[in-house]
Amino acid sequence: MKIAMNTGGGDAPGLNAVIRGVVLAASQKGWEVFGIKYGYQGLIDTKQIIRLTPEVVWDITNLGGTILGTASKGDPFKYLVRNSDGTVAETDISDKVVSNFKALNFDALIAIGGDGSLRIASEFMKKGIPIIGIPKTIDNDISATSVTFGFNTAVNTATEAIDRLHTTAKSHDRVMVVEVMGRNTGWIALHSGVSGSADVILIPEIPFDIEKVCNKIRQLELIGQNYAIVVVAEGAKPVGGDITIIEKRSDGVVRLGGIGKKVAEEIASRTGKETRDMVLGHLQRGGAPTTFDRLLSLRFGAAAVRFIAEGKFGTMVALHSSKIHAVPIDEAIGKMNTVPLDSDIILTARSLGISFGN
Amino acid sequence: MKIAMNTGGGDAPGLNAVIRGVVLAASQKGWEVFGIKYGYQGLIDTKQIIRLTPEVVWDITNLGGTILGTASKGDPFKYLVRNSDGTVAETDISDKVVSNFKALNFDALIAIGGDGSLRIASEFMKKGIPIIGIPKTIDNDISATSVTFGFNTAVNTATEAIDRLHTTAKSHDRVMVVEVMGRNTGWIALHSGVSGSADVILIPEIPFDIEKVCNKIRQLELIGQNYAIVVVAEGAKPVGGDITIIEKRSDGVVRLGGIGKKVAEEIASRTGKETRDMVLGHLQRGGAPTTFDRLLSLRFGAAAVRFIAEGKFGTMVALHSSKIHAVPIDEAIGKMNTVPLDSDIILTARSLGISFGN
Amino acid sequence: MKIAMNTGGGDAPGLNAVIRGVVLAASQKGWEVFGIKYGYQGLIDTKQIIRLTPEVVWDITNLGGTILGTASKGDPFKYLVRNSDGTVAETDISDKVVSNFKALNFDALIAIGGDGSLRIASEFMKKGIPIIGIPKTIDNDISATSVTFGFNTAVNTATEAIDRLHTTAKSHDRVMVVEVMGRNTGWIALHSGVSGSADVILIPEIPFDIEKVCNKIRQLELIGQNYAIVVVAEGAKPVGGDITIIEKRSDGVVRLGGIGKKVAEEIASRTGKETRDMVLGHLQRGGAPTTFDRLLSLRFGAAAVRFIAEGKFGTMVALHSSKIHAVPIDEAIGKMNTVPLDSDIILTARSLGISFGN
Amino acid sequence: MKIAMNTGGGDAPGLNAVIRGVVLAASQKGWEVFGIKYGYQGLIDTKQIIRLTPEVVWDITNLGGTILGTASKGDPFKYLVRNSDGTVAETDISDKVVSNFKALNFDALIAIGGDGSLRIASEFMKKGIPIIGIPKTIDNDISATSVTFGFNTAVNTATEAIDRLHTTAKSHDRVMVVEVMGRNTGWIALHSGVSGSADVILIPEIPFDIEKVCNKIRQLELIGQNYAIVVVAEGAKPVGGDITIIEKRSDGVVRLGGIGKKVAEEIASRTGKETRDMVLGHLQRGGAPTTFDRLLSLRFGAAAVRFIAEGKFGTMVALHSSKIHAVPIDEAIGKMNTVPLDSDIILTARSLGISFGN
Repeated sequence: MKIAMNTGGGDAPGLNAVIRGVVLAASQKGWEVFGIKYGYQGLIDTKQIIRLTPEVVWDITNLGGTILGTASKGDPFKYLVRNSDGTVAETDISDKVVSNFKALNFDALIAIGGDGSLRIASEFMKKGIPIIGIPKTIDNDISATSVTFGFNTAVNTATEAIDRLHTTAKSHDRVMVVEVMGRNTGWIALHSGVSGSADVILIPEIPFDIEKVCNKIRQLELIGQNYAIVVVAEGAKPVGGDITIIEKRSDGVVRLGGIGKKVAEEIASRTGKETRDMVLGHLQRGGAPTTFDRLLSLRFGAAAVRFIAEGKFGTMVALHSSKIHAVPIDEAIGKMNTVPLDSDIILTARSLGISFGN
Repeated sequence: MKIAMNTGGGDAPGLNAVIRGVVLAASQKGWEVFGIKYGYQGLIDTKQIIRLTPEVVWDITNLGGTILGTASKGDPFKYLVRNSDGTVAETDISDKVVSNFKALNFDALIAIGGDGSLRIASEFMKKGIPIIGIPKTIDNDISATSVTFGFNTAVNTATEAIDRLHTTAKSHDRVMVVEVMGRNTGWIALHSGVSGSADVILIPEIPFDIEKVCNKIRQLELIGQNYAIVVVAEGAKPVGGDITIIEKRSDGVVRLGGIGKKVAEEIASRTGKETRDMVLGHLQRGGAPTTFDRLLSLRFGAAAVRFIAEGKFGTMVALHSSKIHAVPIDEAIGKMNTVPLDSDIILTARSLGISFGN
Repeated sequence: MKIAMNTGGGDAPGLNAVIRGVVLAASQKGWEVFGIKYGYQGLIDTKQIIRLTPEVVWDITNLGGTILGTASKGDPFKYLVRNSDGTVAETDISDKVVSNFKALNFDALIAIGGDGSLRIASEFMKKGIPIIGIPKTIDNDISATSVTFGFNTAVNTATEAIDRLHTTAKSHDRVMVVEVMGRNTGWIALHSGVSGSADVILIPEIPFDIEKVCNKIRQLELIGQNYAIVVVAEGAKPVGGDITIIEKRSDGVVRLGGIGKKVAEEIASRTGKETRDMVLGHLQRGGAPTTFDRLLSLRFGAAAVRFIAEGKFGTMVALHSSKIHAVPIDEAIGKMNTVPLDSDIILTARSLGISFGN
Repeated sequence: MKIAMNTGGGDAPGLNAVIRGVVLAASQKGWEVFGIKYGYQGLIDTKQIIRLTPEVVWDITNLGGTILGTASKGDPFKYLVRNSDGTVAETDISDKVVSNFKALNFDALIAIGGDGSLRIASEFMKKGIPIIGIPKTIDNDISATSVTFGFNTAVNTATEAIDRLHTTAKSHDRVMVVEVMGRNTGWIALHSGVSGSADVILIPEIPFDIEKVCNKIRQLELIGQNYAIVVVAEGAKPVGGDITIIEKRSDGVVRLGGIGKKVAEEIASRTGKETRDMVLGHLQRGGAPTTFDRLLSLRFGAAAVRFIAEGKFGTMVALHSSKIHAVPIDEAIGKMNTVPLDSDIILTARSLGISFGN
């Protein structure tokens, strides 16, 4: 057997551990593994394919990023090419990907990626490439699996940052607003906010009233706490009106952002408190995976190899109640895992006196 | 409402976060919380009771150990007292505990502890103390809950230590044997061994053949890996014969131990490899809880307060599939959570080429 | 003896360890120590004075921030008071500080702070308060001492952040620009940049040419490195022209800032590379001190007590070649410790191929 | 220029950063660098030589251990060979090392190692190999340089371990005895003990009286501290009598050890306190270097290349007061850097109430 593997989308801590899991498990079966660099780029320009042996991956469990790189030009179905006149046009070169895949005699492709990458994987499946998906989302927002690798590390990084901001907030009687990842879901904000003893947590699932946020800060002062920590998911939004800054980039991507800064400004002007904001941004994607994510990643990688041996093509590795399941990719994509409003962690946060600004 | 709380048995990272969770959640309801120091000692000598306010617990989420101390003399049903002639005798002073509890007008006791502590809690329940249990076992060996706080931190500490030993093993072409916690179960050894790229993992659930362990090390040399990492749970035991050293202490406690050292000696003499052993011991209990354990601990603490509000006395807080459940204490005690031989992590480990010595 | 102690200016990791060092060392001599909260505020409103016993400070070595808080209204010689008509005016209430100090029978004041705080201390010395100074600057920019506590921790935090950004830069072929502290000096940028394998380091001491920065990035691409890490001190400035954004705040403070963002924008537009920027900001002040800073802080605290015993008032604790010295405060203030252009670390950086953009 | 480089003796965090420093700095000059594996083994069996390019070393700053391996058979002047009758004999094969060095047209050798390795380097210098030494000792016991790489990391690892033991000691009212590295000098014990809030520190430089150690523990109980942390350097020894266990191994090596265990037993039997001991051992050698050690290592590596360019053969890289110096190897070897009894850190420790058992 000859297996190909790629990684797509934003990097997440644990990607290299998944790669190691795949390579070691395949190697135990006597299979060969090849890394397709930069998403599907290596199946367009086949010089971008590398042989992955146990030696190559031996020490990478602990390494952040992905040794395969991720897609820069993205989707082969909508590939960006530069015309002779300098303009950029979209073209479908998926057939080339398929023909290269077959010409190289690959028996299967393990596609590691988020919702977008899994969608593309599903289309290639329909075009005849036998695919096993491995979900990757640092935001933990794929509903078909109870947890994804990278999430625990991101929460950890965010919590450590909140810890650091705590001490400086307390020393200076300040309100610190920290914006964490989570465009559509508040998982990172919720987990890191509760773990990091935040006073206010704002998440996309619960539209907030800025005045209620300020009231919480005023109440804290009444009981002698002159500082506050406000954790804001990048996709948090106010009730009704909208203080979110939306940036529509020339490449069509719509970026939220600046919500943390905006919230900080509102708090400062409404409460008169000295307020600072901080965007954690890329820090949350980088660095070595936590032990939790290392193990999860190795399990996902090993499971993908088992799924190939069992011929479960078209499925994605998923975890439920500490058991690995094969979920059809088509069932998995497009289903967002948002924070249930009655979830135990929300309940816990409220019990601890944390405000969601509602 | 006036709530009492104690912590029993060995300390586990997260105990203070549980305490914080209880105090903040109770305080939101307007209840008072009191800490019973040193297990049940504070209900024997009531000077050992402290008032726990939000201020007292505000900064303790991150603190290892337990601000309440744990039991030194243990079980009030078999309390050790020193007679006038210097001999030590066992006596039952549980009635005194009950009467003090009532005299102080406590409405409930939150007992945080392992299997032994939960057994005692169950007996006090029968004597009329309304009890909510919170399971505590760093070994993750209580079957009624899918995970317990402290376990993730212990795995993390063990994995970091294995990481460190890796670099020195590799530089010196050595076999490093590291003994981790796990008297009855191999959870810590398994999780840290897989995450830490061990070559051999020995756990109580899978009796090992020392010759097969040595064979694995010899095979590694053949493929050019001149070093090896062997992770041994303290309760690991060989097939048939027994190379475990058992120490029967004067206080009746039977301590396993030295299995790591013994395994190292056997490997050195059978393979001729330079071998070192290391016992992680108490390092695994100490230190700040990981983010994962912080959150879990806060959830357990907040849930115990909810259980009191709902009158669910006689139950224990448990987690299943990210949901909190109330499990009757009597159903929970005595049921060991051992590693299932067909569990996905065992499967993963074997896929990665890790030997269990069988 | 009855000693007072305060902390001024921005917080730095290690402040609490200094406080612990002072309290334990004074306590061994049988002296009493009192903490003046919020800079000199506690000597204006004496309710803001707390007794510091060994018990109070026992566990604080490891704690970020300062349990004494830092000055909010700042300088008692230019104290801000609100008039009845709502306007704010500056007034000199230094005499009140002196008279309260004497009324409380304090024998000495240990003033922990940066250049500004030491200046104020010097003025109070002239007004009759026996003062020992302890230098505090996270930027390491006081020339009278070879190193200050907090600096190693800040470098560590910055380096960890750079490590994290590395993995994501590499996975995405990006230029990551990270702005670190250092308004007047490049110590943090230099230490963290070299330790963190930066490709370009921009510091105030070496005005940079943005085109040379871009050339470095283009050269890296030629040798196959498609990403780059650029570390920018917040006070870095271009040769001749100035791309620094200067914000003049209403309180008269001039804040640099945004230089990282500006550099990122220039790189993106000139090289066409995907570029991201990140401001580490307050993260660098917070958190637990490193072991190095813990030890240095305890030494500074203990030395201050020795200096009092020896009557060395008007001096500041300083370190040179691992020895503690008493330096007259008046000699120490106003002398900036900038990075010498021929220093060994600059030399090392250039040897490693790191560009300073000049 | 064609440079060779090797690493000798026990591994220390930072070795790989030194290697990286050498390779990048040499590469900037257009020189070639080769790694001699396993000490001088690669100059005996020249298949054990690897080309070191910037690509090979790019990511290794952060990696523990040494990618070159360290000597297993040690000294080429006293090389161990197995005779046909199975006995092992010592022989001098240094001429072979010299002739291979010349046959391979190497222009210089950078020898990274401790006192023993530097002695061998000095002998090879006399035989015509142009050598630059880089000192390596995790114990910080070479007097010719004010600090060596690896030491800060070892102190950090020991301090973190002491932190963890603190929380469990406190929860259980126990005495924890932790044995750290330091056969001849107490630097690691002293730095980690003070930073980690130890109550007693025992170092080789100050012979201890076990009864005074016990008195300190009894005094702590009187003031309400029912636990204690005792940090013991592996080479600590009692006044007069000797409770050190010395193991004379068959290979002639004399190993101290067990002093921590012995001290723990004595404390338990004399004070009646529950006591545990822990040997940190190999943990202190492993793992990623701290930021401090990364920078120092890179500086040492870059300096060695400068020394070659300047023809300073026969010297060793040393640091004094933040400046790099070239110290003749022959002046450096055999001069132990012990803790001065009047050093500021000893003074600080005593000020904080820490006992040295004397």
